[in-house]
Amino acid sequence: MSDPVTIDPSDWVCPLPLRETKRILLGHGGGGILSEELIENLFLPAFGSGGGPARDSAVLTVAGGRIALTTDSYVVNPLFFPGGNIGDLAVNGTINDLACSGAQPLGLTAGFIIEEGLELEVLGAVAQTMGKAAAEAGVSIVTGDTKVVGKGSADGLFINTAGVGVVPDGVRIGPEQARPGDHVIVSGNIGEHGVAIMSVREGIDFGTTVTTDSAPLHQLVAAMLAAVTDPNVVHVLRDPTRGGLVASTVEIARAAGVGVELDEHLIPVPDAVSSACSFLGLDPLQVANEGKLVAFVDPAFSAVVLEAMRSRPEGAGAVVIGRAVEEHPGMVVGRTAFGTTRVIERELGEQLPRIC
Amino acid sequence: MSDPVTIDPSDWVCPLPLRETKRILLGHGGGGILSEELIENLFLPAFGSGGGPARDSAVLTVAGGRIALTTDSYVVNPLFFPGGNIGDLAVNGTINDLACSGAQPLGLTAGFIIEEGLELEVLGAVAQTMGKAAAEAGVSIVTGDTKVVGKGSADGLFINTAGVGVVPDGVRIGPEQARPGDHVIVSGNIGEHGVAIMSVREGIDFGTTVTTDSAPLHQLVAAMLAAVTDPNVVHVLRDPTRGGLVASTVEIARAAGVGVELDEHLIPVPDAVSSACSFLGLDPLQVANEGKLVAFVDPAFSAVVLEAMRSRPEGAGAVVIGRAVEEHPGMVVGRTAFGTTRVIERELGEQLPRIC
Repeated sequence: MSDPVTIDPSDWVCPLPLRETKRILLGHGGGGILSEELIENLFLPAFGSGGGPARDSAVLTVAGGRIALTTDSYVVNPLFFPGGNIGDLAVNGTINDLACSGAQPLGLTAGFIIEEGLELEVLGAVAQTMGKAAAEAGVSIVTGDTKVVGKGSADGLFINTAGVGVVPDGVRIGPEQARPGDHVIVSGNIGEHGVAIMSVREGIDFGTTVTTDSAPLHQLVAAMLAAVTDPNVVHVLRDPTRGGLVASTVEIARAAGVGVELDEHLIPVPDAVSSACSFLGLDPLQVANEGKLVAFVDPAFSAVVLEAMRSRPEGAGAVVIGRAVEEHPGMVVGRTAFGTTRVIERELGEQLPRIC
Repeated sequence: MSDPVTIDPSDWVCPLPLRETKRILLGHGGGGILSEELIENLFLPAFGSGGGPARDSAVLTVAGGRIALTTDSYVVNPLFFPGGNIGDLAVNGTINDLACSGAQPLGLTAGFIIEEGLELEVLGAVAQTMGKAAAEAGVSIVTGDTKVVGKGSADGLFINTAGVGVVPDGVRIGPEQARPGDHVIVSGNIGEHGVAIMSVREGIDFGTTVTTDSAPLHQLVAAMLAAVTDPNVVHVLRDPTRGGLVASTVEIARAAGVGVELDEHLIPVPDAVSSACSFLGLDPLQVANEGKLVAFVDPAFSAVVLEAMRSRPEGAGAVVIGRAVEEHPGMVVGRTAFGTTRVIERELGEQLPRIC
């Protein structure tokens, strides 16, 4: 494992002895006795009362209406990094996809693809982190699946989490809903997750340790929607993960057919992120975040929404960073403190592979 | 690609030119322009009207009640095999997990983990097969996710599908619902999927080509439930995938605390499966199926349920193969035509790794 880690695999305690191995065997994915032992002795205790992946499917009760459905696979490298690991990333990331459609999460699934030979204590620490992140967010991991592939056929551990959530009546949030005049709000500092990963991966010490911002955002979204009588004044929510703030705003501009102007000097980039990015040749606006959202909000209500965001720890740093405009539809333009402008375009591919 | 394949990658036609590459690049997973091209030019056309993975989440409308949620990752090796490929396996397998909780599928997610360098035509053929399988089953792939890992960090292509479905009122299906006296029904020939995979993987010619039985079972389940006025007479449904008929019946016996007696001479094993298994040293009762179900049904209604099953092509070979008993709770016993018995136990691990 790399240092610094915040979740120590040796903290993991297997409640019942697994068969005499300290590593994942092919048979743990075989659907037989070893699979059952892994579920009963490792996953279920880690996932707690949520029930966990003992069953092929879980049954949940819903009121009639709209549900949101989402999926994300996590292939982050390394598995452990400052402030978190692949486990909380997988839980929070999928909660955030639900939250950004305006939904409150109802249940998560967890699908593991494990490379033969992975240390059981690593898997245990990751599973316990997932259980802890789910409990903190008030969401259950309700079902799961485990596959094991031979040594060399995967890189340690990949996790897929899918999620289902309930969309409150009246909420119509989507990238195509942005309208000229909307204020663009970001919920806090950007670039931290990507820099946290790169600092471990490259073994670079930037003086200050930048930790991931991984956090669930559904309670922040609930607070934003509760602050206004008409939830329709919140037009777009998006968590700027891969491709960062740039990819998110370009996608919104294109989906809604609006232009976007960002006041670059208002975008909150911590000094440590800024210097790490300049050292690594990265644009902080294109670096992944895992606990931030971008909102496009009716300008008449942006002050009240902003206030609601700032009342919560995960939105304490929320600021207006720009606006949607009628000009240059589909395009994002950055404006400096000096009034000069530049077109901001997405990367063709990827600044940072396997960031999430 | 291995022969014989039934889906030919060269059948795949990319509707719009992808950037000048015939292979997956790391950047296709980066959330930038290449990712968008992959979604718009490959996944969306393949998945058709379902919408597909353009969005981070999909919104579906449900009536109030119970929904089922399931997930499965697919790591089958090779990707193409007689009768199908990883794509229809991933669609049908998740539909079947929903169906076996009594649910009718509402929507599927698709999460791709792709090894850098995978031929685009292979990914295209798999995606088109997924779209075709979903359309045939009357289900939409509503959202998705794509990650790319470096060459050597995965083995070609892994797919996760999660699914959400609606459980009709009154249905209470689960492994713990089995009761002494229940008839055990299997919907048709067993062992075909596992043998189909092994025949390609080992390059063995058994004379007859055994093809996968991969098929969606939700319509079969609907027919079974429609045949009886009280849906509660169907106690357990289970698709015997990894670990085959043995793993499924042992799990049910343990969950319900009942014994199970299987009349081994009544279990439908095709000759080609039987001879392949004896050649490979496998027990056909432990070989994976991907288009079969095992049902535990109130004996007073098994005839009518059986008739309903036989009225559909995917249940044409349905037969009663045993019963649940009060004796030897948690244990499955096989009874031969000569009246002798044996205890049937699951494998510790895995007869056939990466079978699904």
